[in-house]
Amino acid sequence: MFETLTAEIIAIGSELLAPDRTDTNSLWLTEQLNRHGIEVKLKTIVGDDDARLEEAIKDAVRRSKVVITTGGLGPTEDDITRKITARALGRRLLLDEQVLAEIRQRFQSFGVTMPERNSRQAMVIEDAVVLPNPNGTAPGMFIDHNGTAIVLLPGPPREMRPMFENHVAERLAGRAGSLRVVRRMLRVAGMGESAVDEKIAPIYTQYDNPVTTILFNQSEIEIHFTARGRTEKEANDTLDRLSTQIEERLGNAIFSFAGEKMEEVVGLKLSLGGYTVSVAESCTGGLLAQRLTEVPGSSKYFIEGVVTYANEAKTRALGVEPILLLEHGAVSAPVAKAMAEGIRNRAGTDFGLSITGIAGPGGGTEEKPVGTVFIALADDVKIEHRKLHLPGDRQLIRWRASQAALDLLRRRLL
Amino acid sequence: MFETLTAEIIAIGSELLAPDRTDTNSLWLTEQLNRHGIEVKLKTIVGDDDARLEEAIKDAVRRSKVVITTGGLGPTEDDITRKITARALGRRLLLDEQVLAEIRQRFQSFGVTMPERNSRQAMVIEDAVVLPNPNGTAPGMFIDHNGTAIVLLPGPPREMRPMFENHVAERLAGRAGSLRVVRRMLRVAGMGESAVDEKIAPIYTQYDNPVTTILFNQSEIEIHFTARGRTEKEANDTLDRLSTQIEERLGNAIFSFAGEKMEEVVGLKLSLGGYTVSVAESCTGGLLAQRLTEVPGSSKYFIEGVVTYANEAKTRALGVEPILLLEHGAVSAPVAKAMAEGIRNRAGTDFGLSITGIAGPGGGTEEKPVGTVFIALADDVKIEHRKLHLPGDRQLIRWRASQAALDLLRRRLL
Repeated sequence: MFETLTAEIIAIGSELLAPDRTDTNSLWLTEQLNRHGIEVKLKTIVGDDDARLEEAIKDAVRRSKVVITTGGLGPTEDDITRKITARALGRRLLLDEQVLAEIRQRFQSFGVTMPERNSRQAMVIEDAVVLPNPNGTAPGMFIDHNGTAIVLLPGPPREMRPMFENHVAERLAGRAGSLRVVRRMLRVAGMGESAVDEKIAPIYTQYDNPVTTILFNQSEIEIHFTARGRTEKEANDTLDRLSTQIEERLGNAIFSFAGEKMEEVVGLKLSLGGYTVSVAESCTGGLLAQRLTEVPGSSKYFIEGVVTYANEAKTRALGVEPILLLEHGAVSAPVAKAMAEGIRNRAGTDFGLSITGIAGPGGGTEEKPVGTVFIALADDVKIEHRKLHLPGDRQLIRWRASQAALDLLRRRLL
Repeated sequence: MFETLTAEIIAIGSELLAPDRTDTNSLWLTEQLNRHGIEVKLKTIVGDDDARLEEAIKDAVRRSKVVITTGGLGPTEDDITRKITARALGRRLLLDEQVLAEIRQRFQSFGVTMPERNSRQAMVIEDAVVLPNPNGTAPGMFIDHNGTAIVLLPGPPREMRPMFENHVAERLAGRAGSLRVVRRMLRVAGMGESAVDEKIAPIYTQYDNPVTTILFNQSEIEIHFTARGRTEKEANDTLDRLSTQIEERLGNAIFSFAGEKMEEVVGLKLSLGGYTVSVAESCTGGLLAQRLTEVPGSSKYFIEGVVTYANEAKTRALGVEPILLLEHGAVSAPVAKAMAEGIRNRAGTDFGLSITGIAGPGGGTEEKPVGTVFIALADDVKIEHRKLHLPGDRQLIRWRASQAALDLLRRRLL
């Protein structure tokens, strides 16, 4: 239906091949390119290796209409992008006096003389458009090579991103023609992946455009839509048509319509209602408080949190009756409810939210295996609770428990 | 000095080219390969694209002695790795009756009949060694092609990793010959990056082997050593020679010698000494408690935490005198000390640890700008405190504050 322009991204630098480093520039670039309907078909990560880089560039230029390189534009011997790109394209590398003057100027503005090696950064590929770099010394380049756009960008994100936004995006958009791509993501809580799919597959499978993808991320289901159109409006209208049906179908299970996190959604609802909250946690060990207070401005509604690991702490800090702990155990509905009520009373807040459970790896029993978690929410009218059986390792169980507790509060605030 | 075997890794699957997905298999594989002295020279990420994948495989096989692919071994039309690798190598793809029987068996063991499409996964490249996959249906393959090893692995890490460890590592180690590479990482807290480098550069710059790299990660300095030798012992001895000097030079600033996290180091020291701890936090909002309780078994030493955002909570929960809050403000040394003492008294623990500060983005003043943080530690003898000026955004300031507090406790436990 729509012809898309194809792109390849080449990340250059031996440090990107270490076991603890990954190329993240290409993710940001992919998002920018997709927005203009340009599809990334291949990514290469190559070290400071003349032969491999030359081959990577030659292959990419032959196959794709857009080729973007990041990195390797520094002033040292290891920075081979300029030299090897010129060689791969069969073009000369020429000293650009104006660029050299600008680099010299940049050093002078910091009160130092330009080191000789930086003159290397003023070498420009024949017929390339020079892309200014106000955030560093390495200029970028834009080359039209038999209809393929080759773009050389610096590696540091704070230099690369503004250069792309100010000098590359428009040029590529012109080539991409009128195709526009828009994306949207809905986040769902409190339903399993297959339950979500069962509900919405009959709807989204009727559409080739938008494309719908369902991802499972910790305990959130993400529904991603990608719509194409000849204008941004057309793409958005196409997206709205499907999204509206999905939203109707899933109702309150959708908590986020524009990428907001659960704690931001809850925080906003608390703020708008002028409500306050306090929390009491056991197995999540502070994660619930930490997520709530990660939101800037949370001091308006978050009053107090306690992490009561030991039973004595539950009694002393929250007033949980020892008899409850004895009869039902610390991981039980009565204790979760007493914790929620206890912290609400003590902190004098509108809501008290609690979690008690077994995050593992130890501590599970046949009756209460690892992953057994009780959450409770108290307000001035009632105390409700949920019993959960959460899969995953310690960290995941803790995260999912905090998510379920926040979701319980979110639904109360609807 | 040492001849290294070169490798390339090809990650296959269109989903890996989305703006929010990254290939992480190659990081794990790089670490494994490096251990045997095999160097990764190039990585490719390619979608379900016949022509591009065929070219990527052909290029890699021509250039490198080891080629590893991950993904694309599933049962659907989109899973093209088998077909395209066979084509790139000019080999036939043959149905392996034994593999087919095993896949059928696997389905039967779950009580279901094998769907017809899964028979595709029993297609094996001519003369390939089949690598069993106890964790999934897709077997891997190991092919020797004119002296280059081509390894096809499944995409899911829980299938890929055991397959590599059990069936690939030894085969590649044999080809790698006698070169062995060992790595070690030291983590440093409480010193800046340039201060560390100033102290240790005069030592490590004397060595070409090991290679030393210094990385800055949140608020930790990581010192990475990579040593090569003809045997593992030789490589380790080489590494020890340098590491010992660095350790002497930096002393107590090194908190981790084998990748342990700060909270694990502190937890181990608390456990070994039979000590207990409680914490009181303001700006970190539960992060300190959460980090301490992230360690399995932390219920032995972690008794209680409070997150006192509001001033009233500091007074009510910790007994901080209102006059202190009024005279010095919530972010001050006297309040930090009162918080540490208050939680220690209330929870009856050996140590009380506290944090109060301004994480931003709002709340800063000229006198106490964003990033101003006080931490305090109380035991039965004294209460000590530190004033910190932490750079970064809200999240980073919170993390750094928690790190500094944990480090204060660690040093007390030395």
